[in-house]
Amino acid sequence: MVDEYKMVIVVRADLKMSKGKMAAQASHAAVNCALAAKKRDPESLERWMNNAYPKIVLKAKDEAELFLIKSFADAAGLLNSVVTDAGRTEIAPGSVTCLGIGPDASSKIDKVTGELPIF
Amino acid sequence: MVDEYKMVIVVRADLKMSKGKMAAQASHAAVNCALAAKKRDPESLERWMNNAYPKIVLKAKDEAELFLIKSFADAAGLLNSVVTDAGRTEIAPGSVTCLGIGPDASSKIDKVTGELPIF
Repeated sequence: MVDEYKMVIVVRADLKMSKGKMAAQASHAAVNCALAAKKRDPESLERWMNNAYPKIVLKAKDEAELFLIKSFADAAGLLNSVVTDAGRTEIAPGSVTCLGIGPDASSKIDKVTGELPIF
Repeated sequence: MVDEYKMVIVVRADLKMSKGKMAAQASHAAVNCALAAKKRDPESLERWMNNAYPKIVLKAKDEAELFLIKSFADAAGLLNSVVTDAGRTEIAPGSVTCLGIGPDASSKIDKVTGELPIF
């Protein structure tokens, strides 16, 4: 089986963001990860983009779980980015909303996020 | 008043995507626009990123409205990107799901998208 390259975006479920808010926050994570990969790991970025950029959005139950997943991603050497909301709408300024991971090989990312449910 | 730089993501409301699906599609548009801007308009990208990357998610009622907005964006010389879903989940393969516009000056983008409701 080919080891597909993907990006995972872990979103806090407890903030109960609207669809539009959540899409904006996830987009922020994705842009951070893509631009960081362009600088630090252009080969992964290219492999991901050459395969229709799979992006999977997963649920963290709260901020503590999000940071736990981040610590696993750091330990695994996965590029990742925490998004803190500017707080213009809906939620308190400075709230951590989501975590982007990758793009990287699915097998590597799944070891870190494999237990989280799909959003 | 300072003319803020922003990115707008116009999402088809008629597809009734789940939160996770919509977040993934919007992320795709945002990555396309950010990487295209890095190549073609790095100054706009930098102005946008230096100001907490505002991203606004708006509703198009259907594919026809999305392409109408795209034609306005093209006419205004705004960088934009249409996202077509790979169709692995929820919706038919090849469906157009959203349109990213910018990053560019709010005043310029608002002329194109100003009538659309927030998602």
